[in-house]
Amino acid sequence: MKLRMVTGNAHKAEEAQAALQPLGIDVVQHHVPHPEVQADTLEEVARERALWLRGKVPGAYFVDDAGLFVEALRGFPGVYSAYVQRTIGNAGLLRLLDGEPRAARFECCIAYLEPGMSAPFLLKGVCPGSIASAPAGAGGFGFDPVFVPEGETLTFAELPLARKTALSHRGRALGKLAAWLEGNRPAGNR
Amino acid sequence: MKLRMVTGNAHKAEEAQAALQPLGIDVVQHHVPHPEVQADTLEEVARERALWLRGKVPGAYFVDDAGLFVEALRGFPGVYSAYVQRTIGNAGLLRLLDGEPRAARFECCIAYLEPGMSAPFLLKGVCPGSIASAPAGAGGFGFDPVFVPEGETLTFAELPLARKTALSHRGRALGKLAAWLEGNRPAGNR
Repeated sequence: MKLRMVTGNAHKAEEAQAALQPLGIDVVQHHVPHPEVQADTLEEVARERALWLRGKVPGAYFVDDAGLFVEALRGFPGVYSAYVQRTIGNAGLLRLLDGEPRAARFECCIAYLEPGMSAPFLLKGVCPGSIASAPAGAGGFGFDPVFVPEGETLTFAELPLARKTALSHRGRALGKLAAWLEGNRPAGNR
Repeated sequence: MKLRMVTGNAHKAEEAQAALQPLGIDVVQHHVPHPEVQADTLEEVARERALWLRGKVPGAYFVDDAGLFVEALRGFPGVYSAYVQRTIGNAGLLRLLDGEPRAARFECCIAYLEPGMSAPFLLKGVCPGSIASAPAGAGGFGFDPVFVPEGETLTFAELPLARKTALSHRGRALGKLAAWLEGNRPAGNR
C-alpha cells in the first residue's frame, strides 16, 4: 500500500520510508503548507495537524511531531525542540548541560487519518538515551548529532539510517503504525 | 472606566493597574482558564486568546502576550519565554549568554476586545535593553531579574513598579491602549 506522510522535512519522510518499506508500505512525502500548531503535548500537535489537513490530502496520510526531553532541564526543549534547534541549536543545548546529568529521551507521536475515520489514530514512540559531550556525525537532522540512544556509543547522526530507525522514537512509532494497519485493515485493502 | 484584564498572572494585572489607574482606567484581573495558544508571533497569540474569550467575559477586556528576544540567540526565547522560564530559567539563559553579546528586548502585544468589535485591536510595546551578568532584584516576574532596560543600570526586578511600568514593554503597550481608548470612545463612555 501507498501512504502519504505530510511533512516539509525530507529527513522525516526518508526515515519513514526506511521503517515502513520493509513492511510493504510505500511512504510518499506530501508537503502541504500549514499553520504552526503548538500545544502542550506532542499528541495535541499531531492530532490538530492531522485534523487540519482533512480534505486537503487525498487518501490515507499521517503526520508526526517529535521532541527531545532533557531530564536535567525539566523536559526542555520538549514540544519546542524545532524552535530551540533553530535558535540556540546543539551548541546552546550542550552549554546548558555543562556539568549536568545527561539523561534525555526523544519522543515521537504519529497521527494517522484515512477517509471515514472520525478522529486521528495516535501512536507514540520513545527512545531513551543521553546527550553527548560534543556533536558527532553528519547524518539525521535536528538534535541527532548530540543524542546517543541507550545501549549505543554513537549518536543518531553517526548511526546508519537503518540502525537509527530500528532504535529511534520515530521508528518505534512507525512500527506501531505498521502493526496497527496490518491488524485493522480489511484483507482486501492490505 | 473599569476594564478587565484576562490573565492568571497577578503580576501582569498589577502592572496594568499601575499603568492605567493614573489615566482613569481601573483594571480588574479576571481569570478564565483557557487552552494554551501558541503561535509564531505574540500578535497571533494575543489575538487568538482574545477571540477565544469572546462570550466568556462580560464587557470590555484585554489580554497580553509578552516575550524576551535575545539577539545573540536569534530571538530565543521569544514567544516561548514562559516555557523557557519554567524549564531552564534565568540560570539557563545566563549560561547560554556566557561570553556573548547581551543585547535583548522585551516585547508585549495587547489584544483589546469589547462587545460590537468584530476583531481585537492590537497594540505593541517594545523595551530595548540588555541581559545582566547575574540575576538581581526581587520584584517583577519571569526574566525581570536578568533584564536591564536601556538607559538604566538596575534590572526590572530592582526597579520600583512605577519606574518599571514607565519603561517596560507592557507599560508602553498599555499607554497606547489608554490613548486609543481615550481617542476612540464616545464622550459619554469615557
